[in-house]
Amino acid sequence: MTLNDSVRARLKDAVGAKGFSEDANEIAPHLVEWRGKYQGQTSLLLKPRTTDEVSKILAICNETATAIVPQGGNTGLVGGQIPFYGEVLLSLSRLDRVRRVDPLDMSMVAEAGVVLAKVHEAAVEADCFFPLSIASEGSATIGGNLSTNAGGVDVLRYGSTRALVLGVEVVLADGRVLDMLRTLRKDNTGYDLKQLFIGAEGTLGVITAAALRLFPNPTTYETAFLAVRDPEAAVTLLHRLQRATGGLISAFEIIARQGLQFVLDHIPNATDPLAKPSSWYVLTEVAAAGELPLKGLVEATIQTAIEDGLVIDGVVASREAQRKALWHLRESMSEAQKFEGGSIKHDVSVPVDKIPAFLTQGIALVEKLVPGVRPVPFGHIGDGNIHFNFSVPKDGDNKAFLARWDDVSRAVHDLVRDFHGSISAEHGLGVMKRDEILRFKSETEMDVMRTLKRTLDPKNILNPGKVV
Amino acid sequence: MTLNDSVRARLKDAVGAKGFSEDANEIAPHLVEWRGKYQGQTSLLLKPRTTDEVSKILAICNETATAIVPQGGNTGLVGGQIPFYGEVLLSLSRLDRVRRVDPLDMSMVAEAGVVLAKVHEAAVEADCFFPLSIASEGSATIGGNLSTNAGGVDVLRYGSTRALVLGVEVVLADGRVLDMLRTLRKDNTGYDLKQLFIGAEGTLGVITAAALRLFPNPTTYETAFLAVRDPEAAVTLLHRLQRATGGLISAFEIIARQGLQFVLDHIPNATDPLAKPSSWYVLTEVAAAGELPLKGLVEATIQTAIEDGLVIDGVVASREAQRKALWHLRESMSEAQKFEGGSIKHDVSVPVDKIPAFLTQGIALVEKLVPGVRPVPFGHIGDGNIHFNFSVPKDGDNKAFLARWDDVSRAVHDLVRDFHGSISAEHGLGVMKRDEILRFKSETEMDVMRTLKRTLDPKNILNPGKVV
Repeated sequence: MTLNDSVRARLKDAVGAKGFSEDANEIAPHLVEWRGKYQGQTSLLLKPRTTDEVSKILAICNETATAIVPQGGNTGLVGGQIPFYGEVLLSLSRLDRVRRVDPLDMSMVAEAGVVLAKVHEAAVEADCFFPLSIASEGSATIGGNLSTNAGGVDVLRYGSTRALVLGVEVVLADGRVLDMLRTLRKDNTGYDLKQLFIGAEGTLGVITAAALRLFPNPTTYETAFLAVRDPEAAVTLLHRLQRATGGLISAFEIIARQGLQFVLDHIPNATDPLAKPSSWYVLTEVAAAGELPLKGLVEATIQTAIEDGLVIDGVVASREAQRKALWHLRESMSEAQKFEGGSIKHDVSVPVDKIPAFLTQGIALVEKLVPGVRPVPFGHIGDGNIHFNFSVPKDGDNKAFLARWDDVSRAVHDLVRDFHGSISAEHGLGVMKRDEILRFKSETEMDVMRTLKRTLDPKNILNPGKVV
Repeated sequence: MTLNDSVRARLKDAVGAKGFSEDANEIAPHLVEWRGKYQGQTSLLLKPRTTDEVSKILAICNETATAIVPQGGNTGLVGGQIPFYGEVLLSLSRLDRVRRVDPLDMSMVAEAGVVLAKVHEAAVEADCFFPLSIASEGSATIGGNLSTNAGGVDVLRYGSTRALVLGVEVVLADGRVLDMLRTLRKDNTGYDLKQLFIGAEGTLGVITAAALRLFPNPTTYETAFLAVRDPEAAVTLLHRLQRATGGLISAFEIIARQGLQFVLDHIPNATDPLAKPSSWYVLTEVAAAGELPLKGLVEATIQTAIEDGLVIDGVVASREAQRKALWHLRESMSEAQKFEGGSIKHDVSVPVDKIPAFLTQGIALVEKLVPGVRPVPFGHIGDGNIHFNFSVPKDGDNKAFLARWDDVSRAVHDLVRDFHGSISAEHGLGVMKRDEILRFKSETEMDVMRTLKRTLDPKNILNPGKVV
């Protein structure tokens, strides 16, 4: 796709001298997905500074049927943010103002380009808390978070990004601005239009700002790393702890020994918190603002679970440094896997109580397809989301292993379907799963999705080729 | 509107002998809104028993451009469920099966016609909890709750109905069935279509079943009735209590003395919990499953608030009967108002921290318009939603007072706009506020709403004339 000269000139004019780049060196980092899995191309990067500039850009694109790809922090994992065919690239990173933080209303209004870590900081400065927590929070932007309905470790307690959004400002495909930056908890005045744009991966409109819910800042954490008998014991423990604490669990993660071993082998300052190895572990955190005596409740629940044979051994962090060390293990899982050669990854979810059966059957399935494969499942068992990863067999051939990706994924996804699960729990569809999803959604559901796309973006200028 | 004979015959045939009624006596109660505010008309009531029958009905209606109005428990307050022009009436009340309750997955699948109280019972039988709590729960159906995104007293803690829905089954205008009854907590595979139908008041599709989130059943309640200095003190107390309990407040209601007085004067078994009258009261409840020692925290927070002059006096329920008596006062507010003659009502929300200023200015405004008017504001201050009601002046003329409705509402709604609030916090638009909303939403927002309506219901057969 080549950009017509007069369109190029109009777009540049709309944002001014600082608002664009045609410099291949400046553009390059925007074109490659951070793991190197996707490589795009474009000759024009737009960097608007205001919603009004975004509006002008889209009006021009719509009028001239010019395709455009919105991009936040470029941390997406499914290629949704990459211009594959020379589309104009629209970086929202200069829309980076926190417009308002209101601790009495427990709300914040932030522009799309504000980095998630900055949202956290702004909340804490007001003695509040914004719960969305993902590994890429130092680069990911709140606009990207909304567009992908980002998940992360706190979903069990606070929900995905969708649950944290009170309002949005969106520029429609034709450049009109939908200002819905309300901070109301209750507003039943017609269709809840913001829901259309959350999780739509920039294909139905461009989110330029968001009104976010804030929460009381937790002041107490009880963090435990536990060796559990098996995944079934983990699910039982989840329910017991949830009931004991009245639903205050903020994270409940499962880790297989193989993954922990990779971390211990490759990541600096990683040490095994427990004396003996175990096949399965749980990392859980209960958090509260206020003076609730969580420690006793958590420890009593664990003690009973030990007596019942669900938990074999465990440690509860007694100070912040220990808590951070435990989380360091969990957060290094993806990184550690890289040292062990190629890996085939899945981001799936199933109903929480089905996780044990899914893990057993799924591991057996892939081991049969690729003898010697090393399963490294881990993730947010508390909300049913497993990063169902597999590393190349020890001393196996990377290339041959990765050539099995489609094979393995097809089998894993079919199993997910048997369990009424999702083949993209938190990463979205992007280009990676755009075609694969056709095997899972009904024709009616796909048809309604396509109809919405045609209705809101009739010229198909917004992130074409993604999602639908 | 008269129904063509052949269409009538096809519709009757689609549901069988037990599935329809043309008996005016049977139909009558479906045509009148329970307060008598709206009166509809129809010659055909359809009572399908299955999703498949609903599908057949809508296919026929769409093919023949026959208008149809879905109805649940007929408890709506804005006329959304009433066929005003002889439309076919579609009662979902025979779709009344709880298809599945799964305490390990913490989910339930219920058909649209299941009464909310039955949803509660089914949850409790599985030692779980479904939080949606509204005064009409003995008649309102879960399908109606979803279609209106019902609110109620527990929104502060659990969110509106939308937040409690994991999946839906919807029949589209053309009769196609969208089966999206997933129970996943995380599923980012394209547009979240269920959001379109929640809160759409039956104008975009007919919800036939819902997958619902369940929660641990609370086992401890701390319920307090407090005389507070003023609404500002109430908001300050809300924040303190929320922080002290780590966000475990499930209800935080404000009550003006006038409203309490009406209850004491007219409702049997209502007694003032406190020795001296106060201008403003708060009824709050903190709830938890598990063994959290809430009592001490709640009492300590109240004690400090008394010392700081925020709370004047108060009582914490020491047993279940006392707790029920306190809730009885709050739940009798609407009923008691009837004994005092006509009332003009508003269901508005503003950002929580703006409630004190809104109350002061709003009351002054209406008192100026109608000297002697008796303000009876009460409601869910915890989530910013006030039922901003006014009773006719003492010994005033009802008819003359009610003739001021539009006047008063216009002024109140304009004030709501100044505070960036909503003119329908939880009741919806229906017919009552369909035109009024035009003064508040941008033309762009209304245009996108209308576009969605045309796209999903091109022949305008679904609840025509409601919402948009």
